[in-house]
Amino acid sequence: MHYLCLNGPNLNRLGKREPAIYGYETLADLELSLSEVAVAEGATIELKQSNHEGELIDWIYEAEDGEVDGIIFNPGAYTHTSVALRDAIAGVEVPVIEVHISNIHQRESFRHHSYLAPVCVGQISGLGLYGYEAALRTFLSKQKGQK
Amino acid sequence: MHYLCLNGPNLNRLGKREPAIYGYETLADLELSLSEVAVAEGATIELKQSNHEGELIDWIYEAEDGEVDGIIFNPGAYTHTSVALRDAIAGVEVPVIEVHISNIHQRESFRHHSYLAPVCVGQISGLGLYGYEAALRTFLSKQKGQK
Amino acid sequence: MHYLCLNGPNLNRLGKREPAIYGYETLADLELSLSEVAVAEGATIELKQSNHEGELIDWIYEAEDGEVDGIIFNPGAYTHTSVALRDAIAGVEVPVIEVHISNIHQRESFRHHSYLAPVCVGQISGLGLYGYEAALRTFLSKQKGQK
Amino acid sequence: MHYLCLNGPNLNRLGKREPAIYGYETLADLELSLSEVAVAEGATIELKQSNHEGELIDWIYEAEDGEVDGIIFNPGAYTHTSVALRDAIAGVEVPVIEVHISNIHQRESFRHHSYLAPVCVGQISGLGLYGYEAALRTFLSKQKGQK
Amino acid sequence: MHYLCLNGPNLNRLGKREPAIYGYETLADLELSLSEVAVAEGATIELKQSNHEGELIDWIYEAEDGEVDGIIFNPGAYTHTSVALRDAIAGVEVPVIEVHISNIHQRESFRHHSYLAPVCVGQISGLGLYGYEAALRTFLSKQKGQK
Amino acid sequence: MHYLCLNGPNLNRLGKREPAIYGYETLADLELSLSEVAVAEGATIELKQSNHEGELIDWIYEAEDGEVDGIIFNPGAYTHTSVALRDAIAGVEVPVIEVHISNIHQRESFRHHSYLAPVCVGQISGLGLYGYEAALRTFLSKQKGQK
Amino acid sequence: MHYLCLNGPNLNRLGKREPAIYGYETLADLELSLSEVAVAEGATIELKQSNHEGELIDWIYEAEDGEVDGIIFNPGAYTHTSVALRDAIAGVEVPVIEVHISNIHQRESFRHHSYLAPVCVGQISGLGLYGYEAALRTFLSKQKGQK
Amino acid sequence: MHYLCLNGPNLNRLGKREPAIYGYETLADLELSLSEVAVAEGATIELKQSNHEGELIDWIYEAEDGEVDGIIFNPGAYTHTSVALRDAIAGVEVPVIEVHISNIHQRESFRHHSYLAPVCVGQISGLGLYGYEAALRTFLSKQKGQK
Amino acid sequence: MHYLCLNGPNLNRLGKREPAIYGYETLADLELSLSEVAVAEGATIELKQSNHEGELIDWIYEAEDGEVDGIIFNPGAYTHTSVALRDAIAGVEVPVIEVHISNIHQRESFRHHSYLAPVCVGQISGLGLYGYEAALRTFLSKQKGQK
Amino acid sequence: MHYLCLNGPNLNRLGKREPAIYGYETLADLELSLSEVAVAEGATIELKQSNHEGELIDWIYEAEDGEVDGIIFNPGAYTHTSVALRDAIAGVEVPVIEVHISNIHQRESFRHHSYLAPVCVGQISGLGLYGYEAALRTFLSKQKGQK
Amino acid sequence: MHYLCLNGPNLNRLGKREPAIYGYETLADLELSLSEVAVAEGATIELKQSNHEGELIDWIYEAEDGEVDGIIFNPGAYTHTSVALRDAIAGVEVPVIEVHISNIHQRESFRHHSYLAPVCVGQISGLGLYGYEAALRTFLSKQKGQK
Amino acid sequence: MHYLCLNGPNLNRLGKREPAIYGYETLADLELSLSEVAVAEGATIELKQSNHEGELIDWIYEAEDGEVDGIIFNPGAYTHTSVALRDAIAGVEVPVIEVHISNIHQRESFRHHSYLAPVCVGQISGLGLYGYEAALRTFLSKQKGQK
Repeated sequence: MHYLCLNGPNLNRLGKREPAIYGYETLADLELSLSEVAVAEGATIELKQSNHEGELIDWIYEAEDGEVDGIIFNPGAYTHTSVALRDAIAGVEVPVIEVHISNIHQRESFRHHSYLAPVCVGQISGLGLYGYEAALRTFLSKQKGQK
Repeated sequence: MHYLCLNGPNLNRLGKREPAIYGYETLADLELSLSEVAVAEGATIELKQSNHEGELIDWIYEAEDGEVDGIIFNPGAYTHTSVALRDAIAGVEVPVIEVHISNIHQRESFRHHSYLAPVCVGQISGLGLYGYEAALRTFLSKQKGQK
Repeated sequence: MHYLCLNGPNLNRLGKREPAIYGYETLADLELSLSEVAVAEGATIELKQSNHEGELIDWIYEAEDGEVDGIIFNPGAYTHTSVALRDAIAGVEVPVIEVHISNIHQRESFRHHSYLAPVCVGQISGLGLYGYEAALRTFLSKQKGQK
Repeated sequence: MHYLCLNGPNLNRLGKREPAIYGYETLADLELSLSEVAVAEGATIELKQSNHEGELIDWIYEAEDGEVDGIIFNPGAYTHTSVALRDAIAGVEVPVIEVHISNIHQRESFRHHSYLAPVCVGQISGLGLYGYEAALRTFLSKQKGQK
Repeated sequence: MHYLCLNGPNLNRLGKREPAIYGYETLADLELSLSEVAVAEGATIELKQSNHEGELIDWIYEAEDGEVDGIIFNPGAYTHTSVALRDAIAGVEVPVIEVHISNIHQRESFRHHSYLAPVCVGQISGLGLYGYEAALRTFLSKQKGQK
Repeated sequence: MHYLCLNGPNLNRLGKREPAIYGYETLADLELSLSEVAVAEGATIELKQSNHEGELIDWIYEAEDGEVDGIIFNPGAYTHTSVALRDAIAGVEVPVIEVHISNIHQRESFRHHSYLAPVCVGQISGLGLYGYEAALRTFLSKQKGQK
Repeated sequence: MHYLCLNGPNLNRLGKREPAIYGYETLADLELSLSEVAVAEGATIELKQSNHEGELIDWIYEAEDGEVDGIIFNPGAYTHTSVALRDAIAGVEVPVIEVHISNIHQRESFRHHSYLAPVCVGQISGLGLYGYEAALRTFLSKQKGQK
Repeated sequence: MHYLCLNGPNLNRLGKREPAIYGYETLADLELSLSEVAVAEGATIELKQSNHEGELIDWIYEAEDGEVDGIIFNPGAYTHTSVALRDAIAGVEVPVIEVHISNIHQRESFRHHSYLAPVCVGQISGLGLYGYEAALRTFLSKQKGQK
Repeated sequence: MHYLCLNGPNLNRLGKREPAIYGYETLADLELSLSEVAVAEGATIELKQSNHEGELIDWIYEAEDGEVDGIIFNPGAYTHTSVALRDAIAGVEVPVIEVHISNIHQRESFRHHSYLAPVCVGQISGLGLYGYEAALRTFLSKQKGQK
Repeated sequence: MHYLCLNGPNLNRLGKREPAIYGYETLADLELSLSEVAVAEGATIELKQSNHEGELIDWIYEAEDGEVDGIIFNPGAYTHTSVALRDAIAGVEVPVIEVHISNIHQRESFRHHSYLAPVCVGQISGLGLYGYEAALRTFLSKQKGQK
Repeated sequence: MHYLCLNGPNLNRLGKREPAIYGYETLADLELSLSEVAVAEGATIELKQSNHEGELIDWIYEAEDGEVDGIIFNPGAYTHTSVALRDAIAGVEVPVIEVHISNIHQRESFRHHSYLAPVCVGQISGLGLYGYEAALRTFLSKQKGQK
Repeated sequence: MHYLCLNGPNLNRLGKREPAIYGYETLADLELSLSEVAVAEGATIELKQSNHEGELIDWIYEAEDGEVDGIIFNPGAYTHTSVALRDAIAGVEVPVIEVHISNIHQRESFRHHSYLAPVCVGQISGLGLYGYEAALRTFLSKQKGQK
């Protein structure tokens, strides 16, 4: 099984911006730690990031064509504004889990609504970087259940 | 006369996704059948698609500079979220007709509103792929009337 | 095949009101030109107009009983206020295409919403009188496809 | 000069319903007293009433064709729901003054909005039956001014 | 005692449209079965239907003048759009019970609001054709209580 | 057949509060009169009341387990605020009819919306205590129809 | 009988601002022409103007104490923002008629709502300067009726 | 370390209602499987359920007093209506993670808003029963990190 | 005279939670200090608290039956969500004064609206624990005035 | 200690308007009775009233400069419309308690919102003239506590 | 050229209130520093402040009559509530630039809307006291361009 | 000191589109004139433009890394739709001033709201191309103040 961890706008600054709050872990570190969890279950995972809405859409279709088995997607601010990403997710058969590092329900009201959540398997919000691992473990758990 | 058929996000999957509903016709097939109609009236048509909002804006200005006589535009999900595309259409003199394959008024309420329609000549929704031909014939009909 | 072109309130003044904008073509002229297009494909078309919501409903049921194969409907202002017409359209099997001469999305905000569009095949707006022909050609095109 | 006093739904009961509040004057009485005022200024006035939205629209066009010089219109409940009547008023050159016997701003909130007022010369509300006379005197005063 | 069963737009198709859902009973059948219940209590009932808002208003005033003792009213789609019918009901002394065959609260949100309910005795929704009988029995029960 | 008549908050005061308006009949009286109607058709009915949302939920599940054939439910103020009761009704197979003694559409606007109506068979409002009997007769009528 | 013609903010510029539209008549001219109408019926009228909300409130109480028989009030922009003026009008027994020179229903949506209209006798809008005379004649007409 | 798994209204039916969708696992089964995960990390977990809002509040304070180290809370329908539960969670120092079995963002719009999420650590929605385990593992992971 | 001081959800933690802000005074302390004030005027007062909406309703009716002369009610979070408590207060003749320790108008917008205030004598908010005493003194002051 | 009792628009009519409801007590009487309470605690109080928003703002700053220890403010209708008064209160260190004689939550919905309450210590509404005394006693009570 | 710097409510406290944030510069200091900039370009500037809406309106007309060439206007809280000031600005030919010291878009949502901005040349917000200079330089720059 | 002048979608057409309104100055001209102002104060400035949201985000981070001292940002239509750009601005320490050539408050209502303004230093709107210079001078003025 192969998974994709997709990250939207501004997440390229992870680990550099406000490390007192978000920690010093970068996307590269995250990719490593998620890989460890994946490999332990006989799976692999790749991490990508883009600030471009169109590029994220392109990658979702590539994932479908490239036989990715599940996408862990932190869409950043596009969560709240992108109907185009919603249509892309709805248009592929790969299951997607939406992840937010911070608790979006504690922030400005325009961050409470997600265009993507209704077409994802589910949404995890506020668990910090562990949210990515929780999403991955959900996929791995289903993978086990199917064997 | 030369026309441009512009297609927004996710339309690259036409013919591959849910063919039972949308049919097996791809964008390439569409370009062929529209060309037939155009050529019969002594005109030509070209088809482009992008998932990138910025690229669609770039192409609208290129159309203006390249002396395109009319744009048939299916903006996909950007219909509902892109003020930038609205400004681009309002900023060129090339007339634009907005086309949607499905009936957007039968879908989620956020798809009922179009930022683009007020700056387009008009909007066609729900006529399937024939909607593109109807838009093209509108341009051709005006072209005839002007002769 | 036989089609009905139904016209709602105030359309009886077509060709008389603001001809500089709407042209000098009356409903009678429109009926003639649509008939030409229909006959060329072996079909016929009839045009009716009423300012009475109830009469329009009555005619929709008569169309169903009278074996009309498709209705081209410009509901005028009832587009925005008539749930009763919506129920009538939803209650018959005859397919209906909604047509507006002007671009309703460029006008007052209460004209942006259509009670009828969700139960019609689709909606054409802003293509001028050509919108009626586009709707008719959609029906004729499907008719051809079915042969 | 000739004026039309048009009355919408439920006004046929004037003088019969709650006379303690609305008085014992009927539409027929009103026509008489308005005629007196008109005749004194060398004008005539006719009064019509209908519960049918479509008939009111028909009459507005007949007024235009019949060379009526001004319409005093109490649209009753259609004030708040009829876009079709708005289009009819906007479509004729005869000036229209909207009149309401009761003060619509003191009643349910859905009665505060008028679809017709923006296309009328003005609106009179709450002056009782005198409101009709005030509207008539406005027309007569303009008539004088034009001589 | 004499009752009126008034039916609004589109109810003329009862029994013909989607009989699997609404059953094969027509308005004529309904009039018969309601008459049986009425006669058993020494009362009579008449049934009328119109697609015309104005005609329904006219009939309400005729009912008042004709000494009808209660109106069972299924206003169909006019429930949600007609302030004019509201004023007519408020303007007569005959008590009115609003009836809907389907459960309007399960349908589109614009069907949840009734302009008429606040001026009716009450509202029955979702009990199928039995709703008419329930309304009639309410009148008959009060009639008994008053003896 | 066995029915349950469930009553929500504040209904314990029935017959004691404002008897000039609501009458002198208490819940106990109501249980008696409903029982008479039920027994006449070979059925039984029991009445319960609680001011506690949780207790009402518990009773709905007990009704399901205890093979109740239909619930007549006056949820009082919980109508407008309880999603939990909605889920309970949606979660059982026992059909529920919602009853309100007063006409909730004549009262404050927050009483016009019911969280429960969309998951009930239907809603009766404004028929006074007869509303309970009307609901019961609806169940009995279906019971007859099924024999 | 003595009347007060009260004018709110910005009306001091009448006759100076955009005379092509509003005419060359100033408040002083208006006072003269209203006085002529009043005197003809044995009454007097005084005109006041202030840009200060507080001063307008003070004057309303002075009118009550000074035995004014009716106030013709053009509140200008305070129409849409002043609850304090509403309370003053509601707090005196002198009847008030609200007058607007232009048709406020044709302007920005925040001008459609009046805090004052519900506590006034009625509202006149869009009749130009004649609106003041219409209001005065309403008072004079009632005065006559009371003799 | 000791954890509490708190469950709100209607969750007592888990495993009995629509097992095709929700599975055959009951709350008791869930308690067992969560305990296995907890024990493996040297922790314990207890599961409670109530349909009573007040009882859930009581238990939150008991958890605080009883030195519970974290609460996994599926508040069911109280998610959307209970400010009182929000205040209780905000009033204790025990961290709470909100869990929903189904994807609440795919359901009715009133289920998209959570009064509780802003005072919880985070929210997990749509991961099925695995959501509980994900929440527990989040607590266990932090517990590990703190050692 | 005998008064009841009723306290809603979460107020059982008073004096224990955030004492730096709310002080160290508990409900028991409050009962003592209110009793002193009451006794000085020849009255008595009792204090109750519950987290259960239903129990609070039950107590309001018991207060009515037990001849309580006034209720000082801090409904906590039920202020903003409980129509059932509103109906209970409206259903008894005992006067109720709503008290909030903190200034609810300084907090989240959903705390600005009170379902209870319109059926209470009045509302006191933001005066700290003194708000209870102010409410009690209001009752005592009226009691004096009535002697 | 010295306190200011500030009164906004229309309160100059207190005791003269509707004495059956508001009593015969004037602002002068109120000043006397508040002074008695103040003097008993070794404090003084002065009362001012203005219909002018600007004057009320001026007085708030004078109070700050004149070493007033607390303001009891009944802002009348400016409560609902004056952001300027809000800024003045927020801009001084003198504590302000907002008082309303009537229960503003029982009146029109635009009276439910206060621009001032969020920057005041608290709000008292509906306790009649005693509300002023309650506010004064709150200040005196704090004064005592600080000694 | 002569300019007016107009300041609305609460700006009289500039330099005295929260100097840590707003600095120690008063309106008098501001007048001096703006004068320096003006004089350097051969212009003059005068500064006025009032807490009275009516007085600000009066001054705008005096500016027009006194041949002021541009107004730099910080309307303070009247920005958000005064339609009367909007009408005054719209009614003069003197150009007006709206200035706010703080960034109004970072504050409460009711401060995001300006009634005045649509009738001003433009709006400057958040640049501190430099915003006044920026507005002045805009006028001076245009003055230069016109020479 | 080095500044960046960033321009969003459609601004590449500056000077070419509607020069009668916007003037003949292009972005290149603007860069020249801003450079003159900057150099006079010993600073430099660079201008960039893109129609791509993602590219603008990328450039903001490059500015941070490249030690830009301030960004003058005209985000065009992304002002109203881009939460992603908001997050980018909030995520860098470089101060940003938002500039709009036209007065966005005079245009369609969806242009009145800016997602970016709350995280910028301030906003300048409607001053034409001078707005860029005003923003630059604000930065230069602060630069001077810091020396």
